[in-house]
Amino acid sequence: MAAAAAQLLRAAARGPAALAVAATAGRRALGSAPPGVAAGRGRRRAALAAAGALGGLGLGLGLGLWRQRAAMSPSEEDEEEKEEEELRQRFMAPPVSGLRELRRRRRELRSRMELLIMETQGEVCRALAALDPGASFVVDTWERKEGGGGISCVLQDGEVFEKAGVNVSVVFGLLSEEAARQMRSRGKSLKAKDGKLPFCAMGVSSVIHPKNPHVPTMHFNYRYFEIEEADGTKQWWFGGGTDLTPTYLNEEDAVHFHKTLKEACDKHDVKLYPKYKEWCDDYFYIKHRGERRGIGGIFFDDVDSPSKEEVFQFVKSCAKAVVPCYIPIVKRHCHDSFTPEEKLWQQLRRGRYVEFNLVYDRGTKFGLLTPGSRTESILMSLPLTARWEYMHTPPASSKEAEILEVLRNPKDWVH
Amino acid sequence: MAAAAAQLLRAAARGPAALAVAATAGRRALGSAPPGVAAGRGRRRAALAAAGALGGLGLGLGLGLWRQRAAMSPSEEDEEEKEEEELRQRFMAPPVSGLRELRRRRRELRSRMELLIMETQGEVCRALAALDPGASFVVDTWERKEGGGGISCVLQDGEVFEKAGVNVSVVFGLLSEEAARQMRSRGKSLKAKDGKLPFCAMGVSSVIHPKNPHVPTMHFNYRYFEIEEADGTKQWWFGGGTDLTPTYLNEEDAVHFHKTLKEACDKHDVKLYPKYKEWCDDYFYIKHRGERRGIGGIFFDDVDSPSKEEVFQFVKSCAKAVVPCYIPIVKRHCHDSFTPEEKLWQQLRRGRYVEFNLVYDRGTKFGLLTPGSRTESILMSLPLTARWEYMHTPPASSKEAEILEVLRNPKDWVH
Repeated sequence: MAAAAAQLLRAAARGPAALAVAATAGRRALGSAPPGVAAGRGRRRAALAAAGALGGLGLGLGLGLWRQRAAMSPSEEDEEEKEEEELRQRFMAPPVSGLRELRRRRRELRSRMELLIMETQGEVCRALAALDPGASFVVDTWERKEGGGGISCVLQDGEVFEKAGVNVSVVFGLLSEEAARQMRSRGKSLKAKDGKLPFCAMGVSSVIHPKNPHVPTMHFNYRYFEIEEADGTKQWWFGGGTDLTPTYLNEEDAVHFHKTLKEACDKHDVKLYPKYKEWCDDYFYIKHRGERRGIGGIFFDDVDSPSKEEVFQFVKSCAKAVVPCYIPIVKRHCHDSFTPEEKLWQQLRRGRYVEFNLVYDRGTKFGLLTPGSRTESILMSLPLTARWEYMHTPPASSKEAEILEVLRNPKDWVH
Repeated sequence: MAAAAAQLLRAAARGPAALAVAATAGRRALGSAPPGVAAGRGRRRAALAAAGALGGLGLGLGLGLWRQRAAMSPSEEDEEEKEEEELRQRFMAPPVSGLRELRRRRRELRSRMELLIMETQGEVCRALAALDPGASFVVDTWERKEGGGGISCVLQDGEVFEKAGVNVSVVFGLLSEEAARQMRSRGKSLKAKDGKLPFCAMGVSSVIHPKNPHVPTMHFNYRYFEIEEADGTKQWWFGGGTDLTPTYLNEEDAVHFHKTLKEACDKHDVKLYPKYKEWCDDYFYIKHRGERRGIGGIFFDDVDSPSKEEVFQFVKSCAKAVVPCYIPIVKRHCHDSFTPEEKLWQQLRRGRYVEFNLVYDRGTKFGLLTPGSRTESILMSLPLTARWEYMHTPPASSKEAEILEVLRNPKDWVH
């Protein structure tokens, strides 16, 4: 194995040691005031300290300055503590790789991406908890014995949300050439020494199923992969997307959702939104039904150009767009009245959601087949309840037929 | 293509022509008195006549004598009509291949198997409808444009049954060598001329989801395949099984179910039950959960020895055991009282049922990927409703933990 690969592995191996203590902090329900993050802070503080949170973390997500406490003046130490406190407010749990490790390799994209997914998890959980004051997120930190772990945040059976899960995972170890090739959608070949490739995969993924049939389900996922070949070359790529699955069509919501995503994309390249919108419509296709899962959004995979930095900045813009593209839609409809028939139609659509996720979704299938993966975190994407009726067909010109038409023939929402 | 292959294709091609008329009879709801079969008899009679039901059908499922009307005396004609009437009572719809075609090749195993699956469908539907007098079976006849078709019988939202589906399908056409190999679990290679193999696949399959959590879900499927190689050699094999999925463990029911299946097997060979019981426990394994779908039963695939006739007789015994192994359990518990918590646990177990069927079941996956297959018939196996809770774990020593223990470590129920 190349020296660089060995170094990558050594660095990776340090993660779980720090995490082990954090993982014992285990599961806790967070209270709702201030929403989603206040309760259990003492326990999280303890866990953070145990994980080795000696360094401060600038607001620029790993771009800030990290200083040695030994060299600090008392006022610098105060600022350090303030930053740590801010960190506790922003993250749902200590990062998988441990703060000490992230600090050590703060200029590496891996570290910056891990901080981005942690911050995204925190942002989304806080935004959701603020809309569902009676409910709380359960935060589970978990470890993968083959390397790495994750943080699963799940809010279940709230007033507004039936089930909302926001999951972070950071896993690493060794892959077979075959498994590594399967990870890349374009199936590029990779050269391993002794048949194994050191890899690192991390991402944030989330599915939000609201109770009210007039509030759509939303899914997003942003992920980063690194594989090191025998000669020390690192292959890397990003994937991700954000998409909406309404029970009933609301054109204003659809336009808002797609426009917000388009703006995030356009800042980087105006060619991105049209390309990734189409990719999304293609990806979320339930072939045996001849329908898409929802009204789309953006989806991309295996993106490794123009440069690591540029793709990261694009992914960051997309992650930052999650709250503004979805939360206004939830606010607008979460108190809409609805009939039992509308609830029934929602349940049937949830059934289709399950069909897509279990039959076609690459992430779910890859996850369930990966040794040591955490089934409960992978399947938190499934709705709390779903329904299958034999031969259910909505009447022509009904609101149910209207959404089906859009799922069969995707529309352009922003032109 | 070999002459024999061409002959098989010609015979197959005749099926849909007869079926086309029957298929136009389309969908109808059957009334409930007499249970499951009386209503719509007039329409079925018309469809039967249109499908060319000129021949009588003996009770021995194709082993009886078929006579030419022209050569019959008036009393023989009376008897013929009586037999046709009996046929209408026993089948849910006209057979896919048409009665004329089945009569023409009455000594072939294909015909006898088609009659067996039709009779099994009728038997099971009548037995279920008798237990749920307020509900009725919807009978859909459908055609596959690539060749063949089927009859789907579904009872939905009854008093006793949440969803009960009994499906017959008889499909034929041409398979690629690769697809043909995938159809055989042992992946035997098959020699095609011009890369295509004429095939015929038929079966009866059923999933019964009752409402009461103290009545288990039951599944059975009996199927027959034929593939004709380039040199005219016919490869054939049978597959099938019957298995039980209780929400709560009832040992007496489990023993009755397995004993009834064992008796059906033992008549043919005492080695069969232990072998197929173990195969069942292996097949219905939900790997990502570390549990079986249910408490098993029997399962076999790709069986082509000792002889076609002997395997057929074994399959017939299994099919005849469906009603006696399941119906007494339904009768015993369909009026049991239950709590909302018990209903909830049932819904969570239904979620696992969906996971197995969509992620692992070979029949479902093969069906959804086969061009021209009927999605609604394949997915009628899914429950009316299901539930997924994040990290649901029943308390130790609870009734819920008791069934989980058996799903994780299958038991021997008959020794």
